[in-house]
Amino acid sequence: MKVLFLNGPNLNLLGSREPGIYGAATLADIEAMVRREAQAKGVEIEFSQSNIEGEIVTRIQQSKGTFDVIVLNAAAYTHTSVAIRDAIAAVKTPTIEIHLSNTSAREEFRHHSLIAPVCLGVISGFGADSYVLGLLAAITVKAR
Amino acid sequence: MKVLFLNGPNLNLLGSREPGIYGAATLADIEAMVRREAQAKGVEIEFSQSNIEGEIVTRIQQSKGTFDVIVLNAAAYTHTSVAIRDAIAAVKTPTIEIHLSNTSAREEFRHHSLIAPVCLGVISGFGADSYVLGLLAAITVKAR
Amino acid sequence: MKVLFLNGPNLNLLGSREPGIYGAATLADIEAMVRREAQAKGVEIEFSQSNIEGEIVTRIQQSKGTFDVIVLNAAAYTHTSVAIRDAIAAVKTPTIEIHLSNTSAREEFRHHSLIAPVCLGVISGFGADSYVLGLLAAITVKAR
Amino acid sequence: MKVLFLNGPNLNLLGSREPGIYGAATLADIEAMVRREAQAKGVEIEFSQSNIEGEIVTRIQQSKGTFDVIVLNAAAYTHTSVAIRDAIAAVKTPTIEIHLSNTSAREEFRHHSLIAPVCLGVISGFGADSYVLGLLAAITVKAR
Amino acid sequence: MKVLFLNGPNLNLLGSREPGIYGAATLADIEAMVRREAQAKGVEIEFSQSNIEGEIVTRIQQSKGTFDVIVLNAAAYTHTSVAIRDAIAAVKTPTIEIHLSNTSAREEFRHHSLIAPVCLGVISGFGADSYVLGLLAAITVKAR
Amino acid sequence: MKVLFLNGPNLNLLGSREPGIYGAATLADIEAMVRREAQAKGVEIEFSQSNIEGEIVTRIQQSKGTFDVIVLNAAAYTHTSVAIRDAIAAVKTPTIEIHLSNTSAREEFRHHSLIAPVCLGVISGFGADSYVLGLLAAITVKAR
Amino acid sequence: MKVLFLNGPNLNLLGSREPGIYGAATLADIEAMVRREAQAKGVEIEFSQSNIEGEIVTRIQQSKGTFDVIVLNAAAYTHTSVAIRDAIAAVKTPTIEIHLSNTSAREEFRHHSLIAPVCLGVISGFGADSYVLGLLAAITVKAR
Amino acid sequence: MKVLFLNGPNLNLLGSREPGIYGAATLADIEAMVRREAQAKGVEIEFSQSNIEGEIVTRIQQSKGTFDVIVLNAAAYTHTSVAIRDAIAAVKTPTIEIHLSNTSAREEFRHHSLIAPVCLGVISGFGADSYVLGLLAAITVKAR
Amino acid sequence: MKVLFLNGPNLNLLGSREPGIYGAATLADIEAMVRREAQAKGVEIEFSQSNIEGEIVTRIQQSKGTFDVIVLNAAAYTHTSVAIRDAIAAVKTPTIEIHLSNTSAREEFRHHSLIAPVCLGVISGFGADSYVLGLLAAITVKAR
Amino acid sequence: MKVLFLNGPNLNLLGSREPGIYGAATLADIEAMVRREAQAKGVEIEFSQSNIEGEIVTRIQQSKGTFDVIVLNAAAYTHTSVAIRDAIAAVKTPTIEIHLSNTSAREEFRHHSLIAPVCLGVISGFGADSYVLGLLAAITVKAR
Amino acid sequence: MKVLFLNGPNLNLLGSREPGIYGAATLADIEAMVRREAQAKGVEIEFSQSNIEGEIVTRIQQSKGTFDVIVLNAAAYTHTSVAIRDAIAAVKTPTIEIHLSNTSAREEFRHHSLIAPVCLGVISGFGADSYVLGLLAAITVKAR
Amino acid sequence: MKVLFLNGPNLNLLGSREPGIYGAATLADIEAMVRREAQAKGVEIEFSQSNIEGEIVTRIQQSKGTFDVIVLNAAAYTHTSVAIRDAIAAVKTPTIEIHLSNTSAREEFRHHSLIAPVCLGVISGFGADSYVLGLLAAITVKAR
Repeated sequence: MKVLFLNGPNLNLLGSREPGIYGAATLADIEAMVRREAQAKGVEIEFSQSNIEGEIVTRIQQSKGTFDVIVLNAAAYTHTSVAIRDAIAAVKTPTIEIHLSNTSAREEFRHHSLIAPVCLGVISGFGADSYVLGLLAAITVKAR
Repeated sequence: MKVLFLNGPNLNLLGSREPGIYGAATLADIEAMVRREAQAKGVEIEFSQSNIEGEIVTRIQQSKGTFDVIVLNAAAYTHTSVAIRDAIAAVKTPTIEIHLSNTSAREEFRHHSLIAPVCLGVISGFGADSYVLGLLAAITVKAR
Repeated sequence: MKVLFLNGPNLNLLGSREPGIYGAATLADIEAMVRREAQAKGVEIEFSQSNIEGEIVTRIQQSKGTFDVIVLNAAAYTHTSVAIRDAIAAVKTPTIEIHLSNTSAREEFRHHSLIAPVCLGVISGFGADSYVLGLLAAITVKAR
Repeated sequence: MKVLFLNGPNLNLLGSREPGIYGAATLADIEAMVRREAQAKGVEIEFSQSNIEGEIVTRIQQSKGTFDVIVLNAAAYTHTSVAIRDAIAAVKTPTIEIHLSNTSAREEFRHHSLIAPVCLGVISGFGADSYVLGLLAAITVKAR
Repeated sequence: MKVLFLNGPNLNLLGSREPGIYGAATLADIEAMVRREAQAKGVEIEFSQSNIEGEIVTRIQQSKGTFDVIVLNAAAYTHTSVAIRDAIAAVKTPTIEIHLSNTSAREEFRHHSLIAPVCLGVISGFGADSYVLGLLAAITVKAR
Repeated sequence: MKVLFLNGPNLNLLGSREPGIYGAATLADIEAMVRREAQAKGVEIEFSQSNIEGEIVTRIQQSKGTFDVIVLNAAAYTHTSVAIRDAIAAVKTPTIEIHLSNTSAREEFRHHSLIAPVCLGVISGFGADSYVLGLLAAITVKAR
Repeated sequence: MKVLFLNGPNLNLLGSREPGIYGAATLADIEAMVRREAQAKGVEIEFSQSNIEGEIVTRIQQSKGTFDVIVLNAAAYTHTSVAIRDAIAAVKTPTIEIHLSNTSAREEFRHHSLIAPVCLGVISGFGADSYVLGLLAAITVKAR
Repeated sequence: MKVLFLNGPNLNLLGSREPGIYGAATLADIEAMVRREAQAKGVEIEFSQSNIEGEIVTRIQQSKGTFDVIVLNAAAYTHTSVAIRDAIAAVKTPTIEIHLSNTSAREEFRHHSLIAPVCLGVISGFGADSYVLGLLAAITVKAR
Repeated sequence: MKVLFLNGPNLNLLGSREPGIYGAATLADIEAMVRREAQAKGVEIEFSQSNIEGEIVTRIQQSKGTFDVIVLNAAAYTHTSVAIRDAIAAVKTPTIEIHLSNTSAREEFRHHSLIAPVCLGVISGFGADSYVLGLLAAITVKAR
Repeated sequence: MKVLFLNGPNLNLLGSREPGIYGAATLADIEAMVRREAQAKGVEIEFSQSNIEGEIVTRIQQSKGTFDVIVLNAAAYTHTSVAIRDAIAAVKTPTIEIHLSNTSAREEFRHHSLIAPVCLGVISGFGADSYVLGLLAAITVKAR
Repeated sequence: MKVLFLNGPNLNLLGSREPGIYGAATLADIEAMVRREAQAKGVEIEFSQSNIEGEIVTRIQQSKGTFDVIVLNAAAYTHTSVAIRDAIAAVKTPTIEIHLSNTSAREEFRHHSLIAPVCLGVISGFGADSYVLGLLAAITVKAR
Repeated sequence: MKVLFLNGPNLNLLGSREPGIYGAATLADIEAMVRREAQAKGVEIEFSQSNIEGEIVTRIQQSKGTFDVIVLNAAAYTHTSVAIRDAIAAVKTPTIEIHLSNTSAREEFRHHSLIAPVCLGVISGFGADSYVLGLLAAITVKAR
């Protein structure tokens, strides 16, 4: 089993970016944490990050046939990208939307996700643990 | 560690209620599944269900000092209950909102949660597994 | 054939409650009137009333296997209850929404029913006769 | 007692028009069914249909002094016609709005009726039986 | 100078139609009153009424080259007819919108006119005198 | 008979103010024009202008017992002043709202009048002639 | 004279519930404070609290003939309950809406009260003193 | 193959109607142009125009069994007619919505089409060529 | 202790202004009533009224250092004045918003107060008694 | 004559992407089909696709002086990109918006195009034929 | 060259008014700072402040022929005054809107300016420096 | 001191792009103008432009530690990019939003900036001079 962890804009800044909201762990720290859990479960993972909407679209397209599940933290594009939504609907790789922060408790424009309706489910608000829970959810989905 | 799984209206019908959306497991099946996982993790759990908004408010109030975390599937009241929101804000027991279905992919009125802004986070769309993921999230939250 | 007439909040006050809008008949008067008609048609009926949303949910749940049709005057909960809607969708007992007054001719917030989309149909505005028409509609539905 | 059954646009196509929504009975079938019931009750009826909003206005105007009650299925004009609303308010012939389908369960724009606030009541969702129930409601109204 | 007084749906009922709102004068009474004033001013007038939106469109089209000004009481179609608006914009005959009642003081849906933006001006709320003021305004417009 | 012509902000600039919209006549020119017509009809008039909302409120208050009708061009305050609306409702001097331009054909925020619902009627779009028509309407109102 | 102080959901937690917003006094403290003032004024009072919307409905119904005035802190149900509104309108016991906090200064969804339009008046923002002011207002109302 | 070109209100004025928006060709010119192209393609066509919404409904109804495709320029009724939408859905003759002007670049109320969702597709903004493109699209549709 | 009672537009008309809504007492009557109560409580008061928004702003500014509390009936400006809101926020004199009528039971535009969020609390609907309750609330506020 | 066919995100997946909506033809198939038609008409074409909004902006910029017309299927960016709209307005190359599916018949957020107002016209709903019709429309535009 | 710095309500309180938002400089301090810069640039300036909307209107009117540019901090009236907007449009003195605070980062109702559309440009968020930047912008505008 | 001037989509076209709105100066011309002013003030500047949202995000990220202030003309992305907003909030480099045109005076969708709330301030409407004013504002900000 192979899971792609796909990260959107500004997630490369984790650790220094508004740590009160996003926590002190860097994306590399999170990757290491997820990798440990994944190895324990016998799951292969890949971490990827891009600031460019269209590149995220492309990586979703390329996931087809390679990955069983995508765990997607689309960050800012969650609220503005029809293109990412269409990519998920097009490739049909099962996708899980995750967020570090509890987006419902933040600005109004973060309450709506354009992407969630084409995902299997959503996990938000658990900081770095959202990634681990995303992995566990992915294993569950695969097991259905 | 003690976790309260609190269930809102119509969840007593699980198994027979719109299985295409909510799955074939009964609430007792889900409780058994969660209990196995909880025992493995050394966590004590309690399952509770009510169709009455005010009773859910009362049980949240009673959680104070007894439970470390509430895993709450408020079902229909997710979208209409300020009273449940106020109860969570009042007792400050850390609360995790869960849903069996991916509410973002259903009717417009299910896209907004009045309760999520006072919860730690949200897990939705993984069927009965949302409960297990809720347990794991609760353990994570406790561990902080 | 068995029909449940289920009545929501404040309908126990009929007769004295804003008679200009709701008429001078008490709920007992209406029940008697419907019972006469039902006996003439060979239909068994039961009248039930509650001020508590969650109890109405429970009675709808209990209708399964006992009643052929529910004639539901959800009163105030018509406009605010997702829980009642979900109960009807869950048990799938054919349900007819009725109102004493013509809700379209009253305050804006009474123009929208959260429940109607999961009912078979709606009858409103005929005072106590809405109950009798509800019975006749139920017989029709059963006869399909 | 005399009741006018007035039918709006596309109801002349009943039977072949989206039978999944509107049923297999033609308008003539429905008329026959209503006529049988009316004869049993000693009520005189007339059936009329037009695709033109202004003609429906004119027929409502002409009902004055001739008909005791109008049973009106304004179809598409339900949602767009202030002119029909004004005609009903002008002639003050008691009017009952009916629909074959449960309009609340269809497209958003069918949820609002411009005409209902000037009618006595509304009956919707019972297919051809909505017409018979409309007749029975009319008799009730007349008996007040 | 020639002025067309064009009247929309239900204005043929004036006198008997909601006299509290529209006054006791019939459309013939109003025509007579306007005709006296018009003769005093040396203006030729024509009165026309239709309940059918498309006929009003046609009469506006036919006004071209025959009438100097249209005084239009579009009644209910004021709030719903893009077709009448387009007809006025197409023929460019100067048009004055009038109303018997003060539409701003009535139901919300009567506060907006689709037609006013392509008219020269609006006169509303003076009962039958709105017609005479419409004539005087027309003379003024012609004199520019 | 005595009529107060009350003018709101920036109307003291007429003649030089956006003449494409408001015309080339100054407020003094308009006053002279109205005065000629008033003398011919045996009506006493007074012209007043203020840029200050509260002063317009005060003058409306003072009209009581002195003026039979107010012809009010509240200009910009038409769209923003509850205070002027309340003053008219308080003194109950019959008031006619007028505008030089056709406000429906301008910016969205000019389409709604807070004042019109408490006036007898509205005349807009006839330039300086709106004032003369306002006088004639006032005479009509007085004659009722 | 007899006044019912009726308290909605979570008010049983006062003292420990978000004291920054609701103050440090418990509901018993407030009751004692109101009782002292009531005795000084010769008024009999009763304090009641429920977390269940339908029970509040029932107590309002039971107030008829027993209490002269209700002082109602409906808490969360202020913003969501048509049923409580209907109960007040049905029994017609004069009712005063009170709040501990200034609801206008809090979340958007707390700015609108479904209940206020059927109450005599509203007092909000004075903490425990809102109850005493509610008592004084009740005495005033009774004295009319 | 037979195609009906059905034209809505004011299209009989083409050539003289706002030529800056609609072009200098009359409806007869356009018909001639389309007819030449149709003959070249071996397609039989019919041109029809009406200002009356209900007549357009009737012609759509009559198209059944006679025409393979309707090319519909509903003009003003595009934005206001549920009746025309229902007629298309009822007869199921494949229908193509066309417009001379680019409606998206005009007033806000022209941006929404009530009819498009039941059509196969839309062609707008190419002036008289929209008709020819409509013909070519119809041939394509037929060829599927 | 010193309290400023500041009154907005049209309150100088009390007694004659819509007595059905505002009562028969003049502002002088109310002042006398409040003064009696104030003397009994040993509080110095001042009554002030203006129709001009900017003057009310100035008086709020001047309250600083002179008055302990402002009791403000901003009347119409309640719903439209950001300037008064900003003045209260700037001087930080504790301010209590009062209304004679129950604004929630009147027109939609009176349901929202721009000023309430910067006040301590709101008292509305008790007629002249709202002023006395305002005084008592002010004493309470001072006593904190 | 030279026409640029510019394709937005996910159109590189055509053929496998939701074929029920977008058809079974790949983008290469469509290009071949358009090329055949273009050669027959003596038109040079170029096909381009990108998933990146900013690259589409750049290609529109580069079209200036090279291409006579752009046929643009902006796909998801149709509904979200002001940047593409600005690029078209900046270079002023005549642009035709096309869509494979009938966007009006799909999700609400696909009903609005940010780009259409700066295009010449729109063609949507004809599957791969939308491209051929786009070519024919381009030839027409060029011929003006 | 002569520039008018016109200041709206509550700006006379600068220095003591919410210094966290508006800074510690008084309006006199700001005037001195701007005057120094103006003298260095050879520009004559005048500072003016009023709490009264209508007085600001009057000063804008008087600027005509005397001042080359107005730098306007309309404060609260920015969001509510059509009268000030109309004054600027009427006199056509080039006007620059300035704000001390970044209004986009504050309450929702401060995000919209009724005045900006008739100004040349907007400068906001630089505290007292917004005035100096306003002066420099004015010089630039004059130099065009 | 070092300032980054960051330019969004289509600004590379300045000079030829809609010069009526954006002016005749190219981006190079503006850079030269700003550079002269910067050298006079002893400030180092860098100019950068990209059509790709994600590249702008990346450059904002890279500004950290290198630039003291960003002057950002995000052009079209001002109204649609949460990603750019998040980048500014993440790196915390003080940022000034600028625009060539007065965006408030253009299309509705340009009135709202997603980015302004995380910027220090906004300067818009002064054409190329907006850049120079942006530089001067940056110097001011640095000097605090």
